Amino acid sequence: MAKEFSRLYLLIPEIRELLARKEKETLKEIFYEYEPVEVAQILNEFTLKERVFLFSLWEIDFAADVFEKMDKKDQFALLRSIDKIQKGKILDELAPDERADFFEELPEETVTRLLSIMQKEEAQNVKELLSYESNTAGGKMTTDFLSVREGITVEDALESLRKKAKGVEMIYYIYVLNKKGKLTGVLSLKDLVLSNPGENIKKIMHTHPITIPIDMDQEKVAEKIAQYDFFALPVVDDRGRMKGIITVDDVIDVIKEENTEDMYKIAAAGKHPADYMSTGSLSTAKHRFTWLLILAITGLFSGMILENFSFVLKKVISLTFFIPFLMDSAGNAGTQAATVTVRGLAIGEVRVEDIWRVVKKEFLVGIILGLGLSIFAFIRAIIFQKSPFLGLTVGITMIITVTTSTSLGSILPLICKFLKIDPAVISGPLITTIVDITSLLIYFAVANLFFHL
Amino acid sequence: MAKEFSRLYLLIPEIRELLARKEKETLKEIFYEYEPVEVAQILNEFTLKERVFLFSLWEIDFAADVFEKMDKKDQFALLRSIDKIQKGKILDELAPDERADFFEELPEETVTRLLSIMQKEEAQNVKELLSYESNTAGGKMTTDFLSVREGITVEDALESLRKKAKGVEMIYYIYVLNKKGKLTGVLSLKDLVLSNPGENIKKIMHTHPITIPIDMDQEKVAEKIAQYDFFALPVVDDRGRMKGIITVDDVIDVIKEENTEDMYKIAAAGKHPADYMSTGSLSTAKHRFTWLLILAITGLFSGMILENFSFVLKKVISLTFFIPFLMDSAGNAGTQAATVTVRGLAIGEVRVEDIWRVVKKEFLVGIILGLGLSIFAFIRAIIFQKSPFLGLTVGITMIITVTTSTSLGSILPLICKFLKIDPAVISGPLITTIVDITSLLIYFAVANLFFHL
Repeated sequence: MAKEFSRLYLLIPEIRELLARKEKETLKEIFYEYEPVEVAQILNEFTLKERVFLFSLWEIDFAADVFEKMDKKDQFALLRSIDKIQKGKILDELAPDERADFFEELPEETVTRLLSIMQKEEAQNVKELLSYESNTAGGKMTTDFLSVREGITVEDALESLRKKAKGVEMIYYIYVLNKKGKLTGVLSLKDLVLSNPGENIKKIMHTHPITIPIDMDQEKVAEKIAQYDFFALPVVDDRGRMKGIITVDDVIDVIKEENTEDMYKIAAAGKHPADYMSTGSLSTAKHRFTWLLILAITGLFSGMILENFSFVLKKVISLTFFIPFLMDSAGNAGTQAATVTVRGLAIGEVRVEDIWRVVKKEFLVGIILGLGLSIFAFIRAIIFQKSPFLGLTVGITMIITVTTSTSLGSILPLICKFLKIDPAVISGPLITTIVDITSLLIYFAVANLFFHL
Repeated sequence: MAKEFSRLYLLIPEIRELLARKEKETLKEIFYEYEPVEVAQILNEFTLKERVFLFSLWEIDFAADVFEKMDKKDQFALLRSIDKIQKGKILDELAPDERADFFEELPEETVTRLLSIMQKEEAQNVKELLSYESNTAGGKMTTDFLSVREGITVEDALESLRKKAKGVEMIYYIYVLNKKGKLTGVLSLKDLVLSNPGENIKKIMHTHPITIPIDMDQEKVAEKIAQYDFFALPVVDDRGRMKGIITVDDVIDVIKEENTEDMYKIAAAGKHPADYMSTGSLSTAKHRFTWLLILAITGLFSGMILENFSFVLKKVISLTFFIPFLMDSAGNAGTQAATVTVRGLAIGEVRVEDIWRVVKKEFLVGIILGLGLSIFAFIRAIIFQKSPFLGLTVGITMIITVTTSTSLGSILPLICKFLKIDPAVISGPLITTIVDITSLLIYFAVANLFFHL
């Protein structure tokens, strides 16, 4: 779905005029009333020189907020064009998680150079975040959170919050740490605002905080945050020391990316490129070719089966006409079952323990679908080929192959899941190919019964 | 992915013992330290009678929080078993959006009966929320939000917040409404806590709030909330009056459900049932059969083409052996291109305006893939059939069909999007079927060149 256009677009002519007249004050104020993401969007309408000018007007925290929302390549271009002092200031001001994402894609020498113009503490923070695997909790978290010591009062906590909150994105949870940095409780700003100022925070804090291990896979993190209705969850290391938080908006991106990857796998389309539109045709083709070739090699077996039974096809050429129909129907039924199972596993609707219930169900579904399609096939054979034997052959094959397909389509993802292989990989085309081979073998076996080959 | 098990599971033996000894106070306190979602999870381990007993111990707001997190069918069972007064209290206390979802699945007479035991105001709220389409902003929003009048001070706003906050889930944004209920600004609790108490809120509020129209489709709502980094966005009617809010955690469910629907469509697997495991085989088969039959009917054309060209197959039977290989390869390549385009459209990576760039790219990708596969096919024909003519026929057909497939696979979803038809519907099997027909026609046309049929 295309992104909605910001209302700021209506102001573009006015902004152009202000730029022409260099009206600094008005230019500054006009943007402050809008969200950074909207400002970042309309920056695309201006030249790099104009962008550099605008960034020089804005206060650093606003500039950093806008910078965070820009596309990677615009960020690089801008950073190359502004002076060193402003560059350092903006980098210092960025949200730690967004900043780590930005640094991750830079060549090592650029990283070193940029770190050298930043404040020591901030540079250290970048290095720490870059040390975690990017698809784990550590790679997704931000180190920007509010913490207080155990045993203080509500008033003290609110006072400490007022002091530190300005530079912190998420102030709605305040984490209570002991002397060793271990997380012992969580306070929500709601609890603090509603409580008696003199109360000890120990009395109002949640003492069994839900936590995320720092090395947890991002997909599991997303699931865990979705399961609880918190806007953020704390990330802890293996000794229970708090290292950062993951907010719910980071989770949305992870869920989308994981779903995209699953769809690519089901379609055997290879790896999802960072940006489809700017990836070249050759590189796209390379991603897709491996799977096509694997499928083509397994597809050779279908050809070999046909070759083996070519004497049958020569005798009863009309058997050939039904091959695409049988293969497609079985393939489609298998893909349906496989996709439903893969997705069911992904959203927790189906569990590996349910294997027999699922397979039993898909077996029954296969019989019903096969029966329906076989009636259709039978009628077709009678009308066009006027051969009840052919009709029976195609009809019976249809029931057997469709049932086999739906059963295989559901059992294979479950076995993959059990063996800790990604179930999405085996769906789609691979199922189709397996099903192709089995349906041809069944077809010739059944044909043999009726035509005594 | 399976849901993580709560730490509360470890307490089950202890809870059983406490239940046996009817230790009310301890039983009450032990649960309060955990999250409602965890408590709802472990309730599955207890009988209905035990659950009813536990609910009778808990304070209403905790009971309502746990109730919200239970499965639909457990909610129904519990509600049937508790007394009328408690039932009314729990229903009054539920979050408005969760409550509307619960009522939505009940038969009308049950709705009327339950509404009659609720407070008037709350019953009215249910009716209002049920009046919106369930897949629009109105159907997803909650009416639980904090609002203040224009022109008051920060101190007044905080005071009003303290009064109303207890029953409200989302207190981190406070919406500023004028006398007519029109939204004129937004305050964050962060702004309030950090500002001078005597300041007029007009000075600190955001004056261009991002809003969601009440009839906006849930998919667009999800995209909009994901685009901005807010934890909630206000929902307004066509006159700008504020009606509710949508929080970011509601959005996660919408994104997952929309992705599931897209995957079902790509696999032509029909509608996603409310619960796969408990849906019967017959009903599942019904959902899937329509598409299988449509695909089977179009598949007849493949059969008719084969029948038409059966004289060719009789002459050169070895042409038959390559039919599954050609059809599968073209189908797989088409599915890859279609899935990538459908997903690209869904996540905003590809726009309809990009149609020529996308098709040009997929055309090139098709040529490269086709060339690779044709070399493979040519070698196979030479080795097994020792026929260079056959090799050339299959090879040339492969290049043409794969290029056609990737081009069609990308152009069809884009045309669908342009015509405002859901692009996911045409991917997958439908592409395969179209591609089957075109590849057979191309195959016989090319064969004609080499074998002079």
